[in-house]
Amino acid sequence: MIIKLKNSTTESQKQQLVNWAENQGVSVCTVIGNVDTLLGFIGDTSHIDIEQLEAMEIVDAVKRIQAPYKKANRSFHPEDTVITVGDVQIGSGKPVIIAGPCSVESEEQICNIAKEVKKAGAQILRGGAFKPRTSPYAFQGLRKDGITLLLEAKKETGLPIVTEIMDISQLSLFDDIDMIQVGARNMQNFELLKELGKINKPILLKRGLSSTLEELLMSAEYIMSGGNEQVILCERGIRTFERATRNTLDLSAVPVLKSLSHLPVIVDPSHATGKANLVAPMSRAAIAAGADGLIIEVHNNPEMALCDGQQSLTPAAFAELKQSLDKVAAALC
Amino acid sequence: MIIKLKNSTTESQKQQLVNWAENQGVSVCTVIGNVDTLLGFIGDTSHIDIEQLEAMEIVDAVKRIQAPYKKANRSFHPEDTVITVGDVQIGSGKPVIIAGPCSVESEEQICNIAKEVKKAGAQILRGGAFKPRTSPYAFQGLRKDGITLLLEAKKETGLPIVTEIMDISQLSLFDDIDMIQVGARNMQNFELLKELGKINKPILLKRGLSSTLEELLMSAEYIMSGGNEQVILCERGIRTFERATRNTLDLSAVPVLKSLSHLPVIVDPSHATGKANLVAPMSRAAIAAGADGLIIEVHNNPEMALCDGQQSLTPAAFAELKQSLDKVAAALC
Amino acid sequence: MIIKLKNSTTESQKQQLVNWAENQGVSVCTVIGNVDTLLGFIGDTSHIDIEQLEAMEIVDAVKRIQAPYKKANRSFHPEDTVITVGDVQIGSGKPVIIAGPCSVESEEQICNIAKEVKKAGAQILRGGAFKPRTSPYAFQGLRKDGITLLLEAKKETGLPIVTEIMDISQLSLFDDIDMIQVGARNMQNFELLKELGKINKPILLKRGLSSTLEELLMSAEYIMSGGNEQVILCERGIRTFERATRNTLDLSAVPVLKSLSHLPVIVDPSHATGKANLVAPMSRAAIAAGADGLIIEVHNNPEMALCDGQQSLTPAAFAELKQSLDKVAAALC
Amino acid sequence: MIIKLKNSTTESQKQQLVNWAENQGVSVCTVIGNVDTLLGFIGDTSHIDIEQLEAMEIVDAVKRIQAPYKKANRSFHPEDTVITVGDVQIGSGKPVIIAGPCSVESEEQICNIAKEVKKAGAQILRGGAFKPRTSPYAFQGLRKDGITLLLEAKKETGLPIVTEIMDISQLSLFDDIDMIQVGARNMQNFELLKELGKINKPILLKRGLSSTLEELLMSAEYIMSGGNEQVILCERGIRTFERATRNTLDLSAVPVLKSLSHLPVIVDPSHATGKANLVAPMSRAAIAAGADGLIIEVHNNPEMALCDGQQSLTPAAFAELKQSLDKVAAALC
Repeated sequence: MIIKLKNSTTESQKQQLVNWAENQGVSVCTVIGNVDTLLGFIGDTSHIDIEQLEAMEIVDAVKRIQAPYKKANRSFHPEDTVITVGDVQIGSGKPVIIAGPCSVESEEQICNIAKEVKKAGAQILRGGAFKPRTSPYAFQGLRKDGITLLLEAKKETGLPIVTEIMDISQLSLFDDIDMIQVGARNMQNFELLKELGKINKPILLKRGLSSTLEELLMSAEYIMSGGNEQVILCERGIRTFERATRNTLDLSAVPVLKSLSHLPVIVDPSHATGKANLVAPMSRAAIAAGADGLIIEVHNNPEMALCDGQQSLTPAAFAELKQSLDKVAAALC
Repeated sequence: MIIKLKNSTTESQKQQLVNWAENQGVSVCTVIGNVDTLLGFIGDTSHIDIEQLEAMEIVDAVKRIQAPYKKANRSFHPEDTVITVGDVQIGSGKPVIIAGPCSVESEEQICNIAKEVKKAGAQILRGGAFKPRTSPYAFQGLRKDGITLLLEAKKETGLPIVTEIMDISQLSLFDDIDMIQVGARNMQNFELLKELGKINKPILLKRGLSSTLEELLMSAEYIMSGGNEQVILCERGIRTFERATRNTLDLSAVPVLKSLSHLPVIVDPSHATGKANLVAPMSRAAIAAGADGLIIEVHNNPEMALCDGQQSLTPAAFAELKQSLDKVAAALC
Repeated sequence: MIIKLKNSTTESQKQQLVNWAENQGVSVCTVIGNVDTLLGFIGDTSHIDIEQLEAMEIVDAVKRIQAPYKKANRSFHPEDTVITVGDVQIGSGKPVIIAGPCSVESEEQICNIAKEVKKAGAQILRGGAFKPRTSPYAFQGLRKDGITLLLEAKKETGLPIVTEIMDISQLSLFDDIDMIQVGARNMQNFELLKELGKINKPILLKRGLSSTLEELLMSAEYIMSGGNEQVILCERGIRTFERATRNTLDLSAVPVLKSLSHLPVIVDPSHATGKANLVAPMSRAAIAAGADGLIIEVHNNPEMALCDGQQSLTPAAFAELKQSLDKVAAALC
Repeated sequence: MIIKLKNSTTESQKQQLVNWAENQGVSVCTVIGNVDTLLGFIGDTSHIDIEQLEAMEIVDAVKRIQAPYKKANRSFHPEDTVITVGDVQIGSGKPVIIAGPCSVESEEQICNIAKEVKKAGAQILRGGAFKPRTSPYAFQGLRKDGITLLLEAKKETGLPIVTEIMDISQLSLFDDIDMIQVGARNMQNFELLKELGKINKPILLKRGLSSTLEELLMSAEYIMSGGNEQVILCERGIRTFERATRNTLDLSAVPVLKSLSHLPVIVDPSHATGKANLVAPMSRAAIAAGADGLIIEVHNNPEMALCDGQQSLTPAAFAELKQSLDKVAAALC
């Protein structure tokens, strides 16, 4: 961390800052140029509050050099982390496909889709029980009953389950769930992250709509610093000015996250684009960009196709996509 | 709500959609042009899921005409809502100034600042006990002890207190707090909003970093639809590409929100700009834009000015600002 | 185009608007619901100014149904357009690779790189003669001399040339250039677009940093409506809050543009990411997303590697990338 | 400028970089810590290309300390610049109001509005002759004839004129125009900026839709470095995800620009918000934020109010606004 002091800084003010830094356990080297004075903070600066530092009246500018995350940092953990969900390994080099409906609606629905996506090659089943909805008047999910139905589908198909948690108070319901999803709107629900750091279960952490990749890694760090190092990162689109897609899928996030961190990175093309016809090309692109997996929405109600999600694939379209994904993955080897 | 059907829609598909809509309690009028078929949904469409509608295979485009919020909607409640916090009225036409430190640090600190800001004309005391921090290694606030100290400052000065909640489990600690703040990162923590809808206490709801004004009003609607209609909206800057300020303060939010809703709107220039030297001009601008109040960070440790927040004012600067705000407010009458 | 009138609209005001529309050559159908009155404008509405319409005091909301571009619109031109640059076909199904240095620096430099990229499989040579630079104090390109050197490299290698124009006054220098690039900052330089509409030469039109895909298509329409229909669209990253990459590469633009328009779409991973180590994964992702080609920066000065562009590949890295791109392209067939 | 070298840097590579820097006229101080090596570049670094530096293989990170603009920089020119347009002074402490229609439509129209806005207190007349329009099918302005009509209105009222240029080739038409506007889409039309640097006439430079404030100052620098130091900066809204307003008016730009630069700063609330009912509150806010002036759209066709701009005020509304602006300006003294 390099700190440029204002020209008006007195010697005693500078000494006060040096003392402050040394009290926080870093050593300080001072560089006095012919115009500027710079301080270099050396050592572990991850607990130094850069905003507090920038706020000091004598500080002109601060440049962080070390990343502020440690457990998630590839520098300190060069090998790829592989995370086991049920009997599926994520991050091992072979892309993992997670599929299922937006919401769990009934036992028949979830079990049928589970069988369909399993047959097509999906390895993990997704499905929403607790649903974050912008409107209080919209369907909020089957909640506890949805969890029960997901476990039923797991029993029938053997597929491990991932589903979203929305509040700490729901945690006890997730005992038999294989991976807990933290949604984009909760990426910085720090109290929830802390609780998830205390359990021993994979966490699928989605990037917030306006979160930087560094902030995503800091949220992973919240979980990991609590002791649970099984975190899978998920790019799912960010909010920009463009309206042709629901969000803007930031696929550069895949190689950037994989260079900064050892954690697996998957992509959600369904929520990112919000349009079924974009799911296939963006899934192929995600795999080509190096993603460790995909999480894709698949529906299964031909008789009510009218009311299906604009971002969901039919099982047939999903099966076809799966085959082309295998080809793209093979082309990368 | 106007729905344009695709040209390929069959008569029976159209009828299926009409039935779906009527089952949801709206009446449908059909307009058959020489090329396009349009459906008009008439009645209360607030519970219709626009995304589900857009997702239907026969639907080309949807245009919502009614706002999706009801309790927060000025159309159904033309008079300004006035909310009472302690003995202070927010939304009555006279701007209310909320001031205090970023974090509660000690009894001496919070009580001293409380006295200073009261003397300068602040009517409500702010101070953080639970602190949302990007890094798990940063100071997380005094938490429960911070609440105790805030209540101490209230006893000493008589100022009502506003402080932030981060999780439902903390709610019982807020019994004697006068107004509960929901921070930007929790604006769409829907489970928390639902709980706050069940209590009888003013809620200060901050806009999320990438939330639209409609989403802010929908989050207010979550609280109001639960029964608690005492919601104060707060613009605190949105995330954009600009880096000269921490966030981009969207002051147009003030007249826009006040035209769409009857709820009071206040502005946080400290978090929006992140720079003390911008707080005064942007505070004056917020009042001139019609804000019902401001929430301003003020610190009070001259002996350690070194480590003060870059966005906090000294009590002296705050007192001076308060005087100029009074002049701007008077100019608007 | 559907127009919702305000409830306060009088019959005579409505009639005035109907007349206004009919004078512009569209027919109007009126739908009077029990609350709302809607007007449908039928016919070619591409010349109707939606903002003017929204501005009318009696208009509550406008919903455009037809896209505002015609010549670029796939609806009116369902087959893919193939554009010939020199002897290279863009849009024919096989991805075309354009490569070369950021700036033309010397005859030796440009001719050497041209040979290297040709050997590695590039089909078109890029190189900047006129350079748009944020700072007036930065190198502005060799300008006219740069064009001469590019033509020299063309003579030596036979590769067609694409290079950027910055102002109409430079146009006469581009007579022997095979494709003219319009840079992101000039995407809405409408006077320049009009001039390029009058010539008979392929135009590579880059998306502006904050331009929507519809605006990109409207800028293509400026060129095409002048008579020059040889437009190739280029996604090169948009400006967002994320700083891990220089811009955010919006790869969804590829399938979106190809569904809306018949024009070829290529991708510039070098400017989008600004980092050499991201060029290879994002190039593969672009091809997997369905791009018709790539434009990639390649440098060639090992003896001064010190000063090379952070976003440029070495010829060796480019050659390796070209091989993996061929594999990804083959996997899509 | 501080450069952090990668740990892998060899002594000879470091020396090569030092030589490169010294050749560019800066002196270099080297700081060798126990882990990191830092270089400090001392002297005028405005011509150093930071992106080129970041691109070097041995460079880990660069932190610029000096602003890259010189002529626009307040550090080197502490006093406010006052610019004279006709007989009006902008930047002298008293806000200047520029008003007029979006487009010049006829002699009667522009002369009538000119008289109305003059009577209401406007000091400069605006009106578009060359109109940048997203669609090639939309009205492109009266162009040369529009300039003639503006000069007619000037003759009748004595108001100085500001109008937009779109291309260098139009420059000769602007001889009798008092101030030339560069629109948001041309803020980085560098060839145009260079030409405007050669003339002796005030330039009103609007911020691009996705331009940072630093980029705006760099574009001002293009004009000023050519010799024309009469540049007035204009905030007119930036593009964000929010759709309640056409753009997001970034009023913090006013105090930020005025602290970084000595140039006058004005605000365009009409284009920023796109809605007439927001113009008055945001005009008052801009003045309260410290703006040196406003540029406001006013229309004047009561008989066709139907077709007026959604962002334009009537002359009566403008006159009323002008009075309230005077009160806000007085409150700041």
